[in-house]
Amino acid sequence: MTTINSSNNINIDGDQLWHSIHEMAQIGATEREGVCRLAFSAEDRAGRDRFIDDCQELGMEISRDTIGNIFARMEGEQPTLPAVMVGSHLDSQPTGGKYDGAYGVLSALEIARSLYAAGRRPTRSLEIVSFANEEGARFAPPMMGSGVFTGKLDLEKMLDTTDFEERTIRGELSQDTTGDFMTRPQRAIDSFFEIHIEQGPILEAAEIPIGIVTGAYAQRWYEVTLTGMESHAGPTPMSYRKDALVAGAELILAVEQTALAHGPDGRGTVGTLSLSPFSRNVIPGSVTLTIDTRHSDNPQLDAMDAMLRQAAAEIAQCRSVSIQVDELWHSPMRPFDPELIHSLEQAAQARGFNTLHLASGAGHDAVYMATSGVPTAMLFVPTKDGISHNESESITREDAIAGCQVLCDAVVARLFAEL
Amino acid sequence: MTTINSSNNINIDGDQLWHSIHEMAQIGATEREGVCRLAFSAEDRAGRDRFIDDCQELGMEISRDTIGNIFARMEGEQPTLPAVMVGSHLDSQPTGGKYDGAYGVLSALEIARSLYAAGRRPTRSLEIVSFANEEGARFAPPMMGSGVFTGKLDLEKMLDTTDFEERTIRGELSQDTTGDFMTRPQRAIDSFFEIHIEQGPILEAAEIPIGIVTGAYAQRWYEVTLTGMESHAGPTPMSYRKDALVAGAELILAVEQTALAHGPDGRGTVGTLSLSPFSRNVIPGSVTLTIDTRHSDNPQLDAMDAMLRQAAAEIAQCRSVSIQVDELWHSPMRPFDPELIHSLEQAAQARGFNTLHLASGAGHDAVYMATSGVPTAMLFVPTKDGISHNESESITREDAIAGCQVLCDAVVARLFAEL
Repeated sequence: MTTINSSNNINIDGDQLWHSIHEMAQIGATEREGVCRLAFSAEDRAGRDRFIDDCQELGMEISRDTIGNIFARMEGEQPTLPAVMVGSHLDSQPTGGKYDGAYGVLSALEIARSLYAAGRRPTRSLEIVSFANEEGARFAPPMMGSGVFTGKLDLEKMLDTTDFEERTIRGELSQDTTGDFMTRPQRAIDSFFEIHIEQGPILEAAEIPIGIVTGAYAQRWYEVTLTGMESHAGPTPMSYRKDALVAGAELILAVEQTALAHGPDGRGTVGTLSLSPFSRNVIPGSVTLTIDTRHSDNPQLDAMDAMLRQAAAEIAQCRSVSIQVDELWHSPMRPFDPELIHSLEQAAQARGFNTLHLASGAGHDAVYMATSGVPTAMLFVPTKDGISHNESESITREDAIAGCQVLCDAVVARLFAEL
Repeated sequence: MTTINSSNNINIDGDQLWHSIHEMAQIGATEREGVCRLAFSAEDRAGRDRFIDDCQELGMEISRDTIGNIFARMEGEQPTLPAVMVGSHLDSQPTGGKYDGAYGVLSALEIARSLYAAGRRPTRSLEIVSFANEEGARFAPPMMGSGVFTGKLDLEKMLDTTDFEERTIRGELSQDTTGDFMTRPQRAIDSFFEIHIEQGPILEAAEIPIGIVTGAYAQRWYEVTLTGMESHAGPTPMSYRKDALVAGAELILAVEQTALAHGPDGRGTVGTLSLSPFSRNVIPGSVTLTIDTRHSDNPQLDAMDAMLRQAAAEIAQCRSVSIQVDELWHSPMRPFDPELIHSLEQAAQARGFNTLHLASGAGHDAVYMATSGVPTAMLFVPTKDGISHNESESITREDAIAGCQVLCDAVVARLFAEL
């Protein structure tokens, strides 16, 4: 059992952490004070390169794998021991905020800087990871880098994934010739820690600075194609129509109804919708849209799947429109490691912070790590108004520092734990 | 009163008409046997240039006005008399059919060819017109060329209209340096005739080849912006959401309900919808969509406007989403000229064709001509399955020829009418 030994304590530099977060937010900064660092874009690469420079200043060894995950390693006293891995991601939504992902990577950097500044070489090696394409905004599915890293997603298939302009990840990576880093060798991992903003309203409402994550919601993502009959908006009587968009509207409301019918933990979102021909006076002949469903409970998510498919079939029949529902991705509910959860709780108590244990509605790289059998844990800090994936996303300096310090204490305990 | 005098009759060349329609359909032909000649595009210009070449072969004088309408004039025996104008448009929807517009322009061309072949010089001059940007698919509003020609739309404002890629008509026309045509001089117009496919199911269902149009439906077009709050699709509970797309879905269904609540002549269509940020796992923060409403009766269209605005206000309040409804365009119900309607009826009877009198759900250039005080009439021919603004749009050869012949007879009667 890892225990927090106060004699080992490292105090992070809160100013340095807060400054590094806002330096990173300059890369891909948007006019409305958000961030746009879409996966594999020039801005994403610029963010990564900044992170690499900072790690190299600490003498860390940089490596990359084939999907573009970046690893920075601080060699421990016993380099053959499995490393403690800490990290998150640097890519963002198209109109994302400053903290989603970046806070986790830069907290890990702050831990490495604090160890370096204190002249402390840990027993186990520390590896910071910046996972590629966590957002999935440009290339689906999300958490792609950690999915490939843990063998849960097929590398070749992921490299051939296309964005909305039909560009592939393979093509984008082939143009990425900057940076001197080696290919990451196969190395065992002792444990994985990730700190992240909550992206929901619970911690803020409870006025609690530290959220200890018990696991991640189950998720199912779909792509839906509705095919009706395009025709002229004027002379076509309402009764003759096979309007794909009206059918789509019914489906959007059915997604909401499905989530509401499955208690407070049910979630359902249509985040993209395209229609054709896209002319003011033409009845839409086809619509494609995506659905994101989530629940904290696996059987409930299965029930949502059945309810949604039933609704789609009924709408199709009623509207004489064909509706094809394809599941793009499924991730079951995944509990985190009890021992690591305990060490985070202990660290928070030792620093005098209240904690709240909660499941994560958002997916995170930590979920794939847990799925692959690596002992995994996560911390959340409160998010202003629960708003994320939004340029106005915000956290307080105080909470950012508190979360990073608790993470640091648990990570340091693990790095220096007696064997 | 114009009367059909059989001694004046000109028989059109049905093969030549049908061939010219399918030659024109090669310009901007799509893979699925439709046509894409978006207004002011290279394809649209190629179609226009083909038409000009054909008219010049008949010795007709070509002119253009500032918005890009093209006129081909066959000088009459008494050139100072107001001319009989016949025509339609050559631009198309993005996935349009072969007949919408082109059938009307090429029927007018066929009349000119038949007069030329018969060596008959009319008393009044004949002017064929190909109106610019009738569809409004790329640059709204529709019927722009005839609207500017009749002074109902402001020329400078229309030239500054932008497409979805922010290009202006002014810019597109400035690149259009081909073609030798003069600027059309101010000349009085005696009457305007247009033949068009019905684009609805009524004539086909009634098995009647000739539709005589009594007037055009009133129309109102809107642009609607819904503004909610973008946020992460996972951690945001359903009860916290301000989802602009769910509100949009309710509005789409309200548009349909509004049309259905106003009898068989009520029409309501949402033909375009864009959302932001457009990411699978982000709740849409904003949606813009367009609404097209129509009715054969002006007070009923006003009632639809009120019902729609009421629905939008209720959805906005219920969903905590702001909804801005802007009217882009309004065209009241416009009856056509009784004398010209009578001459078309007489011509059809003389050729032994049954007729049906109906109002047009679609807008047409003839509507602006009627609005400006020019005596105006229109003919419709049946459209297969009532389907138009679709690549599969179809009419029969027999109906195409019948319609053109009836039009020819009425136009010739007017051209040679004793004064």
